[in-house]
Amino acid sequence: METNKIKVKLEAPMVQARYQYAIDVMLTRLRMIDADLTKKNERPLIRNLCSRIKTAESIVKKLERKEREVTFETAVNTLNDIAGVRVVCYFADDIYQIADAVRRQKDFTIVKEKNYIRKPKKSGYQSLHLIVEVPVTYLDKTTAVRVEIQIRSVAMDYWAELDSQMCYKKDAGQLEAVEKATKQYADVIAGVDKKMLELRKKIQKM
Amino acid sequence: METNKIKVKLEAPMVQARYQYAIDVMLTRLRMIDADLTKKNERPLIRNLCSRIKTAESIVKKLERKEREVTFETAVNTLNDIAGVRVVCYFADDIYQIADAVRRQKDFTIVKEKNYIRKPKKSGYQSLHLIVEVPVTYLDKTTAVRVEIQIRSVAMDYWAELDSQMCYKKDAGQLEAVEKATKQYADVIAGVDKKMLELRKKIQKM
Amino acid sequence: METNKIKVKLEAPMVQARYQYAIDVMLTRLRMIDADLTKKNERPLIRNLCSRIKTAESIVKKLERKEREVTFETAVNTLNDIAGVRVVCYFADDIYQIADAVRRQKDFTIVKEKNYIRKPKKSGYQSLHLIVEVPVTYLDKTTAVRVEIQIRSVAMDYWAELDSQMCYKKDAGQLEAVEKATKQYADVIAGVDKKMLELRKKIQKM
Amino acid sequence: METNKIKVKLEAPMVQARYQYAIDVMLTRLRMIDADLTKKNERPLIRNLCSRIKTAESIVKKLERKEREVTFETAVNTLNDIAGVRVVCYFADDIYQIADAVRRQKDFTIVKEKNYIRKPKKSGYQSLHLIVEVPVTYLDKTTAVRVEIQIRSVAMDYWAELDSQMCYKKDAGQLEAVEKATKQYADVIAGVDKKMLELRKKIQKM
Repeated sequence: METNKIKVKLEAPMVQARYQYAIDVMLTRLRMIDADLTKKNERPLIRNLCSRIKTAESIVKKLERKEREVTFETAVNTLNDIAGVRVVCYFADDIYQIADAVRRQKDFTIVKEKNYIRKPKKSGYQSLHLIVEVPVTYLDKTTAVRVEIQIRSVAMDYWAELDSQMCYKKDAGQLEAVEKATKQYADVIAGVDKKMLELRKKIQKM
Repeated sequence: METNKIKVKLEAPMVQARYQYAIDVMLTRLRMIDADLTKKNERPLIRNLCSRIKTAESIVKKLERKEREVTFETAVNTLNDIAGVRVVCYFADDIYQIADAVRRQKDFTIVKEKNYIRKPKKSGYQSLHLIVEVPVTYLDKTTAVRVEIQIRSVAMDYWAELDSQMCYKKDAGQLEAVEKATKQYADVIAGVDKKMLELRKKIQKM
Repeated sequence: METNKIKVKLEAPMVQARYQYAIDVMLTRLRMIDADLTKKNERPLIRNLCSRIKTAESIVKKLERKEREVTFETAVNTLNDIAGVRVVCYFADDIYQIADAVRRQKDFTIVKEKNYIRKPKKSGYQSLHLIVEVPVTYLDKTTAVRVEIQIRSVAMDYWAELDSQMCYKKDAGQLEAVEKATKQYADVIAGVDKKMLELRKKIQKM
Repeated sequence: METNKIKVKLEAPMVQARYQYAIDVMLTRLRMIDADLTKKNERPLIRNLCSRIKTAESIVKKLERKEREVTFETAVNTLNDIAGVRVVCYFADDIYQIADAVRRQKDFTIVKEKNYIRKPKKSGYQSLHLIVEVPVTYLDKTTAVRVEIQIRSVAMDYWAELDSQMCYKKDAGQLEAVEKATKQYADVIAGVDKKMLELRKKIQKM
C-alpha cells in the first residue's frame, strides 16, 4: 500500500540523517547567534531550544488532511515542517533580533515567513515562523533542506502548551466555549509580554 | 587550609554519590506523583524537573556569608540545600497538589516548609520550599539525606530567571531602582497566575 | 482483543513509572557501589551503565513464545526482565565484586542468579544475571519490583553486540555455520578476558 | 598575567561556540557516513561517537610542555586538537572505510594524518588520527576550524582507557615495568582485532 511505501522511504536512515543534519546545523548556528547577541545585549536572549523530525505517521496524516497525494515526493517537496526547531526567548522583542540574525546568515535561504504575532491564528496562537533552506553537504553534493523555525516568547510558549492540553475538551464537543476561553488566555499572555517589555526598557534606561 | 579540606571532603565520590542518590529518588518519586496526578486531573501538572548539587565553592561562600564555621560537618548539618530539586508546574494551585503528595510519602520526612508564595521575599521571589529527608540505603545502613524542593509556576520560574539576569545591574549600584522594577515584574507575574487560574476553572466547569 | 488490553495496561503511566523507579534506584545504587569499589581498588570498575523497560510489544512476543497466557498479570508475575539494567566493567573479575555488593544491599532481595560465564549459553553468550527485587515506595505502600541486572566485561559486551548483528545471517538459513563462527568469536573473547586479568594482576603486584 | 588572559579569550562564548559548531558538523556528518556505510555493509560500523573541547587549563599545559608561547594566537594556530571527536568502530578495517568517507567530503580539508595503527606509539597506543578543517559559517564569513578525529576499534579504545587508568602507577615510579606490561596489553588487543577480522571475513563468505 501507498501508506506503507511512504513510511519505509521516510524512515530510511539516510533520509532521517539528512533532516537531522539540517536540524543540527540550525541548532548550533542558533547557539552562535545567542552567544553573539548575549554579548551585544549584556543578557541572554534564548531561554531554550528544541527540535523534532515529524514522524512518518503524522506526515501521512497531514498529507491526507491537506488532500495531497500520499507519496514520499509530495511530502518532501510540499511540507515545510518535516524538520522543525523551536526557539523560546525571554522577551517579545528578542524574537525579531533572533529572526534578523537568521536572515543574515549568508548560507541560509529564507523561503517563507509567517508572523503569527502581528496576526495571531484564530485559536490565539502566536509565534514567528521562518522556513529556511539549509545546505546539507555529503560527499560531493550539497542539497538544500528546509527547516521550520518557530520563534516565540516564554509566555507564547506557555500558551501553546496549555492550548494543546485543551484539545481533548475541544474534541468533547465544547469547541466554541473552549476556543473563547483559550482566546482569553492568549489575551492575558499578550498583555504580560507587553508589560514585561515596558519594564525591561525602563530598567535598561537606569 | 580549612577551605581546601572542606572541598576535598565535599567532593569525595561517596559524598557526591549519596546526594545524587537522594536527588534521583526524589526526581523519580516526583515522576510517579505526576503520573498519578495527571490521571486524576486529566492533564499534566508538572512542566519540568531539574536538579543540582551545590558546588563546594558555593557551599563555602554560603557558610562564610552566614558566619558559620567552614567545616564539612557544619555544611552537612546546617545547610538544607546541598541537594536541590526544582519543580515547575502549569498553574499556581498545582503547587499545593504536588506539595501535598510529597508530604504523604510515608518514607519521607518534612523537616521544614517555607511558603514564599503567600509571603514573597523582598525581591519579589515566589516559590514553595520543602526541606525533605529522604532515606538513602547503602549496604546495611540507611541515612536520612536532606533535599530542598522548590515548587513554582511557569510564571514564577520566568520571574526568577529574569531576576538573576538583573544581578549585574544591582551590583552596578542601582540597587534600589532595580529592586523597585523587579518588584513590578513580580506583580505582573502574580497577576497572570491569578487570571490563568480563573480561566482554567471556568473551562473545567464547561 | 487480549493483545490490545495487555498493551494498554502495560503502557499506563503509573505502571511505567513504577518500573522506571525501580531502574532509577538500581542505577543510582550501582553508582554508589562504583564510588565505593573505585576507592577500594584504586581504579574504576564500572565502564558504563544502561537500562531499558521492555516494550509492550516484546512482552507480548515473549509470552507467546513461552506459550503463557497473554495477560497483564502473567507478564508482571512471570517475566523477570521487564525492567533491565546492564553493567559493563573493565575486567572479568570485577563482575563478582559488583554482584557481591548488590547482594549485600539490605533492602534488595536476590530472587534468582544465572551464571552464564561459568556456563555460557549455546550461542556463546556470557554474562552474570541477577534478578533483584527492589522496594518501590509510593504514598503509604511499598511494592517489590523485579529488575534484571546483566553484568559483563567489555569483551563480553562486544561479543553480545556482534552476535545481535549476526541475526539476519542466521535467519538467512545459515544458522549452523554462523553459530559455529560466533562460538569462535566467543572463545577469542574469553581468551582476551583471561589474559587481561593475568596482566592486571601482574601490574598490581609491582 | 599571560595565563589569565589566554583563559579569558579561550572561554569567550563566541570562541567556544565556533569550536562547538565544528564538532557538531563533524558529528552529524559522521552519522550520515554511518547511515551510508551501514547500508553498504549490511551492518553498522560505528559503535559510538563522543567529543570534547579541550579546557583552557589543558591548553595552557600543552603549550608549556611544548615550550611554545602561551598566547591565544599560538593556541589557535598551532594546536590541532582543541576540538576533538572520537569514533569507535566494531572492526579494525572499519577504521579505513570511515576515514575514507571523511576524506571524500568536498567541504572538508584534511590537514594531516597520523596512522598510529601501522606504527603504534611507544606506549602501545593505536588509533588513526585525522586533522580536518571544517568550514564554519557565521553571518557573511566562513572560517576553517580544525577538528582532530581519532578513529579506533573497540579493542583499541578499551586499551586506551586501561592505559589512562595506569597513569598513577607510572607516576609512582614504576614507569618502566608498567610500560612493559601495558605494551603486553596492547599486543593482546592487536591480536584480538586480527582474529575478529578473520572470523568476520569467514562469516561474510558464507
